[in-house]
Amino acid sequence: MPLPVTDSEVVRVRLDVAYDGSEFSGWAAQPGRRTVQGVLQGALARVLRLDPPPVLTVAGRTDAGVHARGQVAHANVALAAWQAAAAGTPTGRRPVDQPEHQPEHQPEHRSEQRVVRRLAGLLPPDIRVRAVGPAPPGFDARFSALSRRYAYRVADTAWGVDPLRRRDVLWHDRRLDVAAMDAAAAALLGEHDFAAFCRRREGASTVRTLHRLRWSREPAGLAVADVEADAFCHSMVRALVGALLAVGDGRRPVDWPGHVLAAGVRDSAVTVAPAHGLTLEEVRYPADADLGAQAASSRRLRAPA
Amino acid sequence: MPLPVTDSEVVRVRLDVAYDGSEFSGWAAQPGRRTVQGVLQGALARVLRLDPPPVLTVAGRTDAGVHARGQVAHANVALAAWQAAAAGTPTGRRPVDQPEHQPEHQPEHRSEQRVVRRLAGLLPPDIRVRAVGPAPPGFDARFSALSRRYAYRVADTAWGVDPLRRRDVLWHDRRLDVAAMDAAAAALLGEHDFAAFCRRREGASTVRTLHRLRWSREPAGLAVADVEADAFCHSMVRALVGALLAVGDGRRPVDWPGHVLAAGVRDSAVTVAPAHGLTLEEVRYPADADLGAQAASSRRLRAPA
Repeated sequence: MPLPVTDSEVVRVRLDVAYDGSEFSGWAAQPGRRTVQGVLQGALARVLRLDPPPVLTVAGRTDAGVHARGQVAHANVALAAWQAAAAGTPTGRRPVDQPEHQPEHQPEHRSEQRVVRRLAGLLPPDIRVRAVGPAPPGFDARFSALSRRYAYRVADTAWGVDPLRRRDVLWHDRRLDVAAMDAAAAALLGEHDFAAFCRRREGASTVRTLHRLRWSREPAGLAVADVEADAFCHSMVRALVGALLAVGDGRRPVDWPGHVLAAGVRDSAVTVAPAHGLTLEEVRYPADADLGAQAASSRRLRAPA
Repeated sequence: MPLPVTDSEVVRVRLDVAYDGSEFSGWAAQPGRRTVQGVLQGALARVLRLDPPPVLTVAGRTDAGVHARGQVAHANVALAAWQAAAAGTPTGRRPVDQPEHQPEHQPEHRSEQRVVRRLAGLLPPDIRVRAVGPAPPGFDARFSALSRRYAYRVADTAWGVDPLRRRDVLWHDRRLDVAAMDAAAAALLGEHDFAAFCRRREGASTVRTLHRLRWSREPAGLAVADVEADAFCHSMVRALVGALLAVGDGRRPVDWPGHVLAAGVRDSAVTVAPAHGLTLEEVRYPADADLGAQAASSRRLRAPA
């Protein structure tokens, strides 16, 4: 039999989230605005019967209009509330018609599936929770992350964007030379001060490590950037993409983005690409044993002084 | 120099069209409804300066909510109107600052691109004209077609549908056995009377040749049906998909759809799958030399008595 649960026990729950950012004012909760965090916390509050709602910490604070397929967040919630939701009972106590041994035998994934289904029923169709459940010790959605991976999708055909993809694909009305963009991107890889591509924030470092920035053509003809870094400062992916689009359509030479980076100051010639072409595809975490150490190291680097 | 164009000369123009069917009452123009045909004819009328608008004939009359990536239509328009739009001048006469030889040297595809761009600027983002231009002799969007190919997309995960695909992917909240659906589909291939899967229409044949009906898993996990026939009667693809979903989730045995077909009458146990999972992907035509013969043969088969 499980030990009795006291009111003060808390479990950290990890959520894997996908959303169409078109009709959200970004991730972060704001009074009077429809935000991903706000809608998600509201649904969690209902499923877990918690008031006030649990507060979510997120891996990538996406701007208005930016989408996600692999967003990760966590919330600390009362263990009793989680167990009640996972068991499908309002109080956390065993339903009377259920044999006493069943909760222990019930596979963990099945009780988590129950919460996923409840959330699927409650949430609007532009947010889905793909998975939810107790996180391993040391897990922090933001600080344990090793890297964030985004995709930026562009259609450069004269006729426009496939109407079924118009919400997550940018129309760029000039042909793009993907090889030139890829060559220009190579100069941006590695650890640099990305101040040239960041919106300035007092006291915050703009040093980041860009692990990958590769352009390719999808079978359907889209030009897609696959971009991964330990973390991104505000509007950084979209500023990088904006600079590379200028190379791709011939407005700038291949070595221009590298020169902008080296100059180290925000360059007004860099256009921040529109939000709707950008999707957070994946957040990477270390093996469970290293979650705590990674979080401690990220906190030293990123937390505001 | 081209021969002078008389008012009575007509050119048949082929349009390749893509649309998100979510906010259309289907293809066919209806008074007071937003339809693909209605919106498209309105934009053509503006680009070609024709009043009344040209009337479009289509390869696949899609129902409300059904999408298209490879729809094909044609319209017969005054040659002078087409030439004016393709030349980018309002009257069809050469602009004064343009050397006299230029229109002849201008590549045909460039003038067609001009019309594509005009339409991209005029049309709402849920319809795109991917290509437009004079059709080869004998071409008829409907009757020259050899076959129509549709895709039906289904997500069978407990958490639901990727929010960015929710407009063209059905959520089916039970796991699907794609191999079983594929086995069941094999019994439906070939020429049959598909009355069991057709909405009855007085005097119309329900004999069709199903060239292909294959289920597979896309990398992202979606179950996708690839369905091709010479033609489909009304709601036929969605009725076939509805029958196969019942096999896929275990409600019906693998041989059931074949039995339904053999019974030859509309079976109330067959649920017509929702419209939004369906997309017309492609219309196939014979080589130019065979367009007229194919049209004559289709007319004999399909035209109402």
